Amino acid sequence: MEKNLFTRIPNHIGIIPDGNRRWAESNNYEKQQGYEHGIMPGFELYELMLQLGVKEATFYGFTMDNTKRTSVQTKAFVKACVDAVEILANRDANLLVIGNENSTVFPKQLIKYVNKRVHFGHGLININFLVNYDWQWDLNHAYRSNNEEQKKIDLYASIASCDISRVDLIIRWGGRRRLSGFLPIQSVYSDFYVVEDYWPDFNKDQFYEALRWYQTSDVTLGG
Amino acid sequence: MEKNLFTRIPNHIGIIPDGNRRWAESNNYEKQQGYEHGIMPGFELYELMLQLGVKEATFYGFTMDNTKRTSVQTKAFVKACVDAVEILANRDANLLVIGNENSTVFPKQLIKYVNKRVHFGHGLININFLVNYDWQWDLNHAYRSNNEEQKKIDLYASIASCDISRVDLIIRWGGRRRLSGFLPIQSVYSDFYVVEDYWPDFNKDQFYEALRWYQTSDVTLGG
Repeated sequence: MEKNLFTRIPNHIGIIPDGNRRWAESNNYEKQQGYEHGIMPGFELYELMLQLGVKEATFYGFTMDNTKRTSVQTKAFVKACVDAVEILANRDANLLVIGNENSTVFPKQLIKYVNKRVHFGHGLININFLVNYDWQWDLNHAYRSNNEEQKKIDLYASIASCDISRVDLIIRWGGRRRLSGFLPIQSVYSDFYVVEDYWPDFNKDQFYEALRWYQTSDVTLGG
Repeated sequence: MEKNLFTRIPNHIGIIPDGNRRWAESNNYEKQQGYEHGIMPGFELYELMLQLGVKEATFYGFTMDNTKRTSVQTKAFVKACVDAVEILANRDANLLVIGNENSTVFPKQLIKYVNKRVHFGHGLININFLVNYDWQWDLNHAYRSNNEEQKKIDLYASIASCDISRVDLIIRWGGRRRLSGFLPIQSVYSDFYVVEDYWPDFNKDQFYEALRWYQTSDVTLGG
């Protein structure tokens, strides 16, 4: 079993699939063509996570800030997100989409997956997908809540992404060493691993190397 | 000038001075003796930052979670924080201490610096010091606020650490690649650099290497 390769597997992995545009440019495509080449890597990773028994994964789709890019790019990454979900609907996963759906850029096809987990097939893994997400929007949700008592007790329970659990390991492709607004509450104790290659150049070894590094790291959760 | 070594200097640097206990053990000291060896490195770094024109730096002192450690360790890191501030009071800096002062572990000597910036000497740099800090305490402050209108408009303006600006570069000593609750709001776009050596083994080259890496990184702030 692949599972026996590792002594410790993260329960929840965050994925920042960056570098699609840089990949496109370096392969003589138009920038926006990078996004469609970012779909299949996600499913290769999905298969590897199933084999290893990872219970939850969150993919950074796009942010509200990202939609300030050119219209042709915005259309391309929105389409890639919709296409990815349509493929996932034929697999075995429980999908939860989190993002600001009260916006014209939010794809209508994904409305039915927002804020409630939908089960596909045998539901072998929880997949969270951040679509038109924004960290301020996420945290401000707690203020918009009417449940005053709950807010005083537990911030985490009041944010928009409260159904997404704490992230153990964040892997970012594309070389940049920053979170770029990815789930600030769930990431406070996350181990952070950076792959230099662009996301469309995903391969199994990058992921395994991240997991090998992760299992050498201790877990203190701030203690 | 040292300043000419770099093409781009971060305005605000976050410092996570980790590895004091591991340094102590590897040098045949008791664990708690590591903290006192973490004071002078901070002043070496302070001098380098002054030379380079860094405008603001935030040091991660200790967290509310840290105080669950043994009493002898807690006393040692609290004392190191107080000693550091007493040395800084004779330098040229504007000090702001942020942390939960409504606790018996919060050092009385630092009460006068909490939540208001105090000017020392020529005030050449803003130094923030997180003392008995906790990320949930920081963010929950927004809920405790009575300014309902402000809360709806701007989360950042309502947190306990609202007078600490966005962090451009976070440097963590001691090899761990995680934020461990360091200013989650100000860190959403921060570049993150890890030094493998323990904090008491600080040297100038580690810092310069971090700055050399930083100037190769682009700034997008989520765009």
